[in-house]
Amino acid sequence: MTTPAEQLLTALHWRYATKSFDPGRTIEPSTWQALEQALVLTASSYGLQPWKFLVITDPALRAELRPHSWNQSQITDCSHLVVLLSKRTIDPADADRLIDCTAAARGLDPAMLAGYRQMIQVDLIEGPRSAVVDEWAARQVYIALGNLLSSAALLGVDTCAIEGFSPADYDRILALEGSDYRSCVVCACGHRSADDRYANLAKVRYPATDLIEHR
Amino acid sequence: MTTPAEQLLTALHWRYATKSFDPGRTIEPSTWQALEQALVLTASSYGLQPWKFLVITDPALRAELRPHSWNQSQITDCSHLVVLLSKRTIDPADADRLIDCTAAARGLDPAMLAGYRQMIQVDLIEGPRSAVVDEWAARQVYIALGNLLSSAALLGVDTCAIEGFSPADYDRILALEGSDYRSCVVCACGHRSADDRYANLAKVRYPATDLIEHR
Repeated sequence: MTTPAEQLLTALHWRYATKSFDPGRTIEPSTWQALEQALVLTASSYGLQPWKFLVITDPALRAELRPHSWNQSQITDCSHLVVLLSKRTIDPADADRLIDCTAAARGLDPAMLAGYRQMIQVDLIEGPRSAVVDEWAARQVYIALGNLLSSAALLGVDTCAIEGFSPADYDRILALEGSDYRSCVVCACGHRSADDRYANLAKVRYPATDLIEHR
Repeated sequence: MTTPAEQLLTALHWRYATKSFDPGRTIEPSTWQALEQALVLTASSYGLQPWKFLVITDPALRAELRPHSWNQSQITDCSHLVVLLSKRTIDPADADRLIDCTAAARGLDPAMLAGYRQMIQVDLIEGPRSAVVDEWAARQVYIALGNLLSSAALLGVDTCAIEGFSPADYDRILALEGSDYRSCVVCACGHRSADDRYANLAKVRYPATDLIEHR
């Protein structure tokens, strides 16, 4: 009988940036469904969810993306390729959307949430953060990436987070130009190939005593 | 018997941005140890780990930080307050540190990793990303945040990620000015107070059909 802590750490030790996926293995549909739900459940500042997730399985589209991803084989060989998109701007309509969704979920009059809406307005829409709101949104997307990497490991799904791609080319190929969202980061999901030599290399982490300081 | 997917989704549904922590409950030491290990195991681009994690339990220090955090009670009432720091710059010394650590972990001559070191050099140190490397580092820290939020939920630990604080004041109080690291984001960890009314509110998420697109 393993404890939850042991299960967690075993999974986090098991995961690694998979270099070679087994192109013949697809993720079980029920497992993939759970990972999509995990993505949806990701936390975000104010709960604004400034993201979308493109799940790409079409081989032709993946072949088109690969040369714009340093030609990495994970793009075409993984089971499910996720392009995590961040919202380019945060507008009053985004605040309204969240307030309306919250009111509906909790059976409230949206007017009761006016104070909450105002916080978003003065921070992200009119405040100093509005000048860097695209980067703020990108950071939120990386929360989703962190959640996805850990969630996948817990379900025995291999991943490789990929920053080595051309966002401009992705945006063009994925028809995101002129849309509200842009390509932020990519995550290949699937199952490692039996001969991925990276799977057996020792994990490299700085000592906890260098990374964690208690005060 | 619950499946791993059910366990994961139950935990992600259970978590919420805790507004009121029980100041009398500390996280079990073995559980906290596991969460520190989970933080250390977080994935990062190139494996560069451009972060540090300050775990603050000193009540006086937390009282000093609270007014610079919109006076949020979580700062003083949680069990373990984590300030996640991002590295301000990525220098040749950072690449050397990673290469040396990798060579030691894997029993290699560092010279065998020259190609890998060169990739870091031309991307983060000399390439276009060098101009935004502080933001690149911050994004990596948000992977750690996403991992921490999910890992904590799996271990029954409540969290509240906090962007509402003054990084400049934190840097001053935590003696980070002039150091290699800066305050990036905060995460309060502990156990929810029995009367936190937010614990029972319906979770607000946009429909999966709006957030996830299949191609």
